[in-house]
Amino acid sequence: MRRLLTIHDSFNFEENDFDITAYGEVLLDMISREEAPLKECVNFTRYFGGSPANVLVNMQRLENKTAFISRIGDDEFGEYLREILDDEGVNLDCLQYDQEEGTPIIFVNKSRETPSWLAYRGADINLEITDSIYDKIDNSSIFFMGSFILSKNPARATAIKALEYAVDKNKVFAFDPSFRANLWPEGNKGSKIIRDLLAQADIIKPSLDDAYHLYGQDHPENYLKKYHSDGAGIVILTLGKDGVLLSDGNNEPLHIPVFSEKVVDVTGAGDSFWSGFLTGILKGLPVKEAARLGNAVAAFKIQGVGALSSVPPLAEIISYYDIQPIEGGNFDE
Amino acid sequence: MRRLLTIHDSFNFEENDFDITAYGEVLLDMISREEAPLKECVNFTRYFGGSPANVLVNMQRLENKTAFISRIGDDEFGEYLREILDDEGVNLDCLQYDQEEGTPIIFVNKSRETPSWLAYRGADINLEITDSIYDKIDNSSIFFMGSFILSKNPARATAIKALEYAVDKNKVFAFDPSFRANLWPEGNKGSKIIRDLLAQADIIKPSLDDAYHLYGQDHPENYLKKYHSDGAGIVILTLGKDGVLLSDGNNEPLHIPVFSEKVVDVTGAGDSFWSGFLTGILKGLPVKEAARLGNAVAAFKIQGVGALSSVPPLAEIISYYDIQPIEGGNFDE
Repeated sequence: MRRLLTIHDSFNFEENDFDITAYGEVLLDMISREEAPLKECVNFTRYFGGSPANVLVNMQRLENKTAFISRIGDDEFGEYLREILDDEGVNLDCLQYDQEEGTPIIFVNKSRETPSWLAYRGADINLEITDSIYDKIDNSSIFFMGSFILSKNPARATAIKALEYAVDKNKVFAFDPSFRANLWPEGNKGSKIIRDLLAQADIIKPSLDDAYHLYGQDHPENYLKKYHSDGAGIVILTLGKDGVLLSDGNNEPLHIPVFSEKVVDVTGAGDSFWSGFLTGILKGLPVKEAARLGNAVAAFKIQGVGALSSVPPLAEIISYYDIQPIEGGNFDE
Repeated sequence: MRRLLTIHDSFNFEENDFDITAYGEVLLDMISREEAPLKECVNFTRYFGGSPANVLVNMQRLENKTAFISRIGDDEFGEYLREILDDEGVNLDCLQYDQEEGTPIIFVNKSRETPSWLAYRGADINLEITDSIYDKIDNSSIFFMGSFILSKNPARATAIKALEYAVDKNKVFAFDPSFRANLWPEGNKGSKIIRDLLAQADIIKPSLDDAYHLYGQDHPENYLKKYHSDGAGIVILTLGKDGVLLSDGNNEPLHIPVFSEKVVDVTGAGDSFWSGFLTGILKGLPVKEAARLGNAVAAFKIQGVGALSSVPPLAEIISYYDIQPIEGGNFDE
């Protein structure tokens, strides 16, 4: 189903009620204040979290129309999250409330190396397909999904139903394939499910770490080949401080360096990239220029603290980093 | 099955490997630093929690031999809790590790009024009966259980199996009947299950708040009558700053005032009372004198911070509050 685009092409979208519908989790990130193993951490601070939710909030700030399909507990933590999404203008018609299970939480320790974490699943597991969800997908240009919601049933089965519907309806499917065995009841065997879904995706944005967990140790260029060989369309491999590699599987991969020299906090940098990149392709930018816009938004993000640190107005980002519109086009369209 | 004792009588125990086996939860209490609705709380501090676990740690400090039947996640939070129990000398042969579900957590907001809370159940729900559990019960003088572990199946069904075994084996069954509808999937109907278990209990220690949630608004003396009418043996109704009411259902209830005038933190005061009281009856004190020892331990507790704030050596408590041994007996027996 995926489009055969090169990194020099633009996506075409018809006018829709929503630029993007994201499907997945919104949750509390409980980050330790101590830099220590989680077992020894005593103090925790609560943050708004969940990759699809972060992407949508950032995209609202970049002037897109967004809708969210998710499920939270009918509790005070859920209310805290809902109010933020609502204040940002995300459409919440498809936000479900669970009467039995709580709002999910992830505990993470502050760490200079790879942080360790513990996930407390809850309401997210029970996300149900409704007619109103199909309706939102019908009226959206892009369908976005991460991997957390795919890691455990019954959430997995319903998520796959939703994404197959979106692909069937020829929506652009943007997928964040981030496999971590300890979230999956079947352990490493879960990676096959993620790999099977790659062939449905028009765009994926794994990190080096994601690639390592899916394919084992290898070189970035080989990772790109493996993702394409599993059927992914456009692959954006993020390399941390080394920027991103952009590949369509046919042309030579394009390297884009990081735009920011100052790094305060990289939390949510990937979600910021997504929001800038998807804003770019919605505006009709060629994929490679949209990736530059992704880098630009991520650059603003990593100079502030928190996954939702302030994103400046789109016009400012575009002018600051000299993002080029398509020939004859402009950003006001 | 329950003993027909008055508050002037002593319990008789044969020598056993363990003075007490407690069955139930050990968990993280995540207490907010802000005095605000939970929705607005940003910072949380982690504490060791779970009523049966607190009772055992305090009883170890009071020189009893204790064993714990519980289940935690095979994760870093579980390890933190296990190490504390182990350091205190609690027997952990029957501590189970869940590979799928995490260590339970309760979020509580700091509040001068009744705090609000959110429970994240996990491994506790899957506590399984094993031969080794029956063995621990066989070799213990007292069997202790709270109500958290009864609130949700499958944990409830196995907990009832264990307590019925203990009662069958003529163990002293000490029960903390603390019903809160929002922990029970069946809501208020759950109170019937707690009430049905009262008839098995030799000793119960509800608070005024517990009585209110079970029977609705009433006077302390009427609450005592209701507990006895449901079949409970010795009833110790805790009245907060007004001390405790002690009743056997036949004699006039005995009022014991609070021993401490200074109050720093009442968290875990009830668990401290339990540990002093049960230590007293294990030492052969008459019930009413054991209740004074319970009050004495609680008095030391509420002058410090945290559910496990330091309990002084038993001899010091006994002498400070002039607890009377049985005639001709002494505390060294």
